[in-house]
Amino acid sequence: MMKITFYDLFTRNLAMLFVIMLFSFNGLAAPALTGTSSNMSFQVDLIASNLQIPWGMTFISPQKLLITQRHGKAVIVDTTDSSITQVNGLPEVDAKGQGGLLDVAVEPAYKAPDGWLYFTYSKAVNDRAVTVLARSRLTENTLTHWQELLVSDSASSTYRHFGSRIAFDLQGHLFFSIGDRGERPNGQDLTTHAGSILRLNLDGAVPPDNPFVGHPTALPEIWSYGHRNPQGLAYDTTTQQLWTIEHGPRGGDEINLIEKGKNYGWPITSHGKEYWGPISVGESTEKEGIESPKKVYIPSIAPGSLILYTGNAFPNWQGDLFAGALKLQHINRTTPDSKGNIIAEERLVSELNQRIRALIQSPEGWIYFSTDDGNLYRLSPLDEQ
Amino acid sequence: MMKITFYDLFTRNLAMLFVIMLFSFNGLAAPALTGTSSNMSFQVDLIASNLQIPWGMTFISPQKLLITQRHGKAVIVDTTDSSITQVNGLPEVDAKGQGGLLDVAVEPAYKAPDGWLYFTYSKAVNDRAVTVLARSRLTENTLTHWQELLVSDSASSTYRHFGSRIAFDLQGHLFFSIGDRGERPNGQDLTTHAGSILRLNLDGAVPPDNPFVGHPTALPEIWSYGHRNPQGLAYDTTTQQLWTIEHGPRGGDEINLIEKGKNYGWPITSHGKEYWGPISVGESTEKEGIESPKKVYIPSIAPGSLILYTGNAFPNWQGDLFAGALKLQHINRTTPDSKGNIIAEERLVSELNQRIRALIQSPEGWIYFSTDDGNLYRLSPLDEQ
Repeated sequence: MMKITFYDLFTRNLAMLFVIMLFSFNGLAAPALTGTSSNMSFQVDLIASNLQIPWGMTFISPQKLLITQRHGKAVIVDTTDSSITQVNGLPEVDAKGQGGLLDVAVEPAYKAPDGWLYFTYSKAVNDRAVTVLARSRLTENTLTHWQELLVSDSASSTYRHFGSRIAFDLQGHLFFSIGDRGERPNGQDLTTHAGSILRLNLDGAVPPDNPFVGHPTALPEIWSYGHRNPQGLAYDTTTQQLWTIEHGPRGGDEINLIEKGKNYGWPITSHGKEYWGPISVGESTEKEGIESPKKVYIPSIAPGSLILYTGNAFPNWQGDLFAGALKLQHINRTTPDSKGNIIAEERLVSELNQRIRALIQSPEGWIYFSTDDGNLYRLSPLDEQ
Repeated sequence: MMKITFYDLFTRNLAMLFVIMLFSFNGLAAPALTGTSSNMSFQVDLIASNLQIPWGMTFISPQKLLITQRHGKAVIVDTTDSSITQVNGLPEVDAKGQGGLLDVAVEPAYKAPDGWLYFTYSKAVNDRAVTVLARSRLTENTLTHWQELLVSDSASSTYRHFGSRIAFDLQGHLFFSIGDRGERPNGQDLTTHAGSILRLNLDGAVPPDNPFVGHPTALPEIWSYGHRNPQGLAYDTTTQQLWTIEHGPRGGDEINLIEKGKNYGWPITSHGKEYWGPISVGESTEKEGIESPKKVYIPSIAPGSLILYTGNAFPNWQGDLFAGALKLQHINRTTPDSKGNIIAEERLVSELNQRIRALIQSPEGWIYFSTDDGNLYRLSPLDEQ
């Protein structure tokens, strides 16, 4: 064993003092936490706080995040100086229960002022709420040129299970998720948008190759169905695979690999239980004609988001999925193999003890994430800033 | 909220006193712990202690477990009264490093005194150790009629990675695992048994339909290869699938679904890192012609065993895999779907803080497990005993 002398302790403390002075000089606090995952060491720093349920995030420039807050307002956070600017020009949203101003995503190759920002939110229609997809343009901190692309057929008075995340492929389409609105039959009902992943052209038109185009009763926007409440949606532009992560009932959260026109089973198949007792939900865990999940979480983690990591900052994480976990309060990292089977899982930043909501990858390959406590954090390589 | 009166407290304490008296009367202590998994509530009770690295277990009668201890001795534990009897007639084993007296398993439909018990152990041959498969008969507490069925070609002076678990199909074969003996090239070398799953008839003969029978250089006992150190082996008689769980390098433990003649990649493919630094082991995580694992553990849990649960005591666990975790000190429950993809994982009994080694399902559908602290525990439905 190494012997530690008084001289060692003295020089170590001097070194530590120097580090503290350095941080003070740069105006930086110590990281909120540090960790290692697949040999990638990272640190987590607090960037902003006092936000109100920060639900969605998108980079409008390399250093500015537009963040939606569920109560209906949005802000722009400058990640270099942590300054927060209110965004003007937002539509009225029906912010009750799980509803409100939800996701935001810039179109691929977005440039202000003519580029489009896509939003999802809940809107009151005849005393019930529906999920809306809209787009808008941003000049300075004001949103203009609003277009409602789809006021979805998903009305319910439950104020639960709105979805709703947005993802783009690079072929001119967007995907957009809607939960079952708390009414289980919606999962299998193709005459409503609820319980489905939808696919639209960027202007809101229905792509002619959607699976139910021309079907006598099914809605043509539907890409896949049988979903309970997919609050995470990620498109892998390398493999051209679409992934969802979904809130199941108790003990039945799922990751699904989405294929055109397929049925994901809710509420016929599920690995979950009723909240009120020991009863399994649905008929079984698997059934002919229904796609099986690629991963089931028992107990449930309550996933609020999903991204597919492609950055260079953490090479060992490329191609992995990251989800924010609300109930089990961590970032959930999973690894798909080349066949799309999820073969590994790891839980990060549990030490924060916060409900983790939105995630986004920055141009540097860092991961920014928000928590229901109103905080925005940055996860970046240890000691490289 | 319910009001609690002094009277309530009094009657509750009386009830508790009664419960304590009841336990005392039956000579039972309170459970070591209780828990719930997929809505199945269980309790864990300490059955025996002071064992020496209890490595393998098999039921020789509905209430008696024969337990191997790595240092070379075996005992019979009566699960009804916790009495421990020494077993006589064991062969000399080379108990160094990870070697010693390893697995034990009775043949299907075992009956004393003519039924066979199969053992694996390490044996010294010219100052190096090899893994041996042998069988024997038990009369009272004495083993007789020893037959060495395979003194494997796996000699190494490392005393690491012996395997070695035994599993039976119901078609007259047994499977038996041998690790790479700490010498990586063995994984891909078909002229040694190391790094392979072997398949034999119950009398030790090579089944003529083994994949490498007639191959000019490969050993005919090999069923699959490219394994690092499979210390768990479970055969699902319903689906006729063979599962292994294997120690990977740092961050690369694997569950594999074993198919005849296939290559499982070690040391060409791995998700793990070298122990000494950030370097990935092997060429890549996946490669053409190599089977991908069904699950990877990052970080490693160090799995020491595997069973496939088929009991009626915990209906929601049927078809699930259970592994004892040494390093991460828990029972690891995983759920395969009908295609053999592992879609869920849960960690049980972490609260014990003990390295969990062997697992076995009892006739009642309970799970007995051993720990490196020398304890034998029983996991059974809560309050049903």
